[in-house]
Amino acid sequence: MTEPLSLSMVLFSGTDDKLTAASVLAVGAASLDRPVRIFLQYWALDAFRADRIEKDHGAAPEAGREGAELLHRFAERGGQHWSETLRQIKEIGDVRITACSLSMDILGIGRDDLDPLVDGIEGIAGFTGEATGQLVFI
Amino acid sequence: MTEPLSLSMVLFSGTDDKLTAASVLAVGAASLDRPVRIFLQYWALDAFRADRIEKDHGAAPEAGREGAELLHRFAERGGQHWSETLRQIKEIGDVRITACSLSMDILGIGRDDLDPLVDGIEGIAGFTGEATGQLVFI
Amino acid sequence: MTEPLSLSMVLFSGTDDKLTAASVLAVGAASLDRPVRIFLQYWALDAFRADRIEKDHGAAPEAGREGAELLHRFAERGGQHWSETLRQIKEIGDVRITACSLSMDILGIGRDDLDPLVDGIEGIAGFTGEATGQLVFI
Repeated sequence: MTEPLSLSMVLFSGTDDKLTAASVLAVGAASLDRPVRIFLQYWALDAFRADRIEKDHGAAPEAGREGAELLHRFAERGGQHWSETLRQIKEIGDVRITACSLSMDILGIGRDDLDPLVDGIEGIAGFTGEATGQLVFI
Repeated sequence: MTEPLSLSMVLFSGTDDKLTAASVLAVGAASLDRPVRIFLQYWALDAFRADRIEKDHGAAPEAGREGAELLHRFAERGGQHWSETLRQIKEIGDVRITACSLSMDILGIGRDDLDPLVDGIEGIAGFTGEATGQLVFI
Repeated sequence: MTEPLSLSMVLFSGTDDKLTAASVLAVGAASLDRPVRIFLQYWALDAFRADRIEKDHGAAPEAGREGAELLHRFAERGGQHWSETLRQIKEIGDVRITACSLSMDILGIGRDDLDPLVDGIEGIAGFTGEATGQLVFI
């Protein structure tokens, strides 16, 4: 029996459209019983602060005003928030979310600032050592 | 004989510089007889609407005004449009382009709105199930 | 004995936060004795010009003013520049950096414009042919 292909994701961007795209990709991998490892850096890490995770993080600049409004309307129609999607797949799959220690330092974020979705803090060596399957940067 | 390494690409961004970079990567893989699977989300999906695929989709915000002008001049010198590049490799290689059903819903895009370059619509599970080689997010 | 998993990175973005994230990922792979191949396109290529590699390349637009200031303060506290990180891992690891010939043409950049960190110029076919491990787009 071969091991399932793992999906390791470096999340860098903190806008709601990219984080939703990332959570969708995580769902796809987890639903195939693949291990998913998520490493939070920079603006994605900032978006996982406990006090603002469900606030509006905007859209990628290229979305423009029209694009941002489409995202708002989707949320109002009951579209699921990316943090809720991640919460659900963490319950059923092998999904682990860690914060990049260097980004914690750069942004001045402490462990207590982070949402409980985040399982821990690690350096790049820890993350890379486990990343032996697919590696994606978002 | 081993199977050729496949390249699965999630296209998220819809600016001409990123779409050109994506089409170049697809050319590189297809020229090595690798299967290429392209999954269109958000602003990349929007750029594949039949009525605007060849219109100016701008450059990444960081390009600045100078960068955007360089792209324009390249097009005027006869630089090939990314949609034409994709059309050519679809004729010779194993290249398939699908639209993400969730993004279709979020952006309110229907099947008839899409350029014939798009082969169909699928959910994340269908795309991920086939993505057993390299996975890239652009 | 199996060959170590290689990490091939297409660098597209030229902001300091993304280039730092890329250099960190390269460190992680190189420290595991994995070969690292870096292919410079567009705005990342522009950032590797000899006369501006250590200048301020700003942050991703989503960083906002607050984010950009955090990056500045990190640099002032002695945070290492991404170009210095790359220089160090090139000395100890199997790390090669090349410029995309098409991007050289689009941006009007000549070989002499590039920092010595860049080992040469190649087309997509050369880069893709070697990219048989992980492939990341940043």
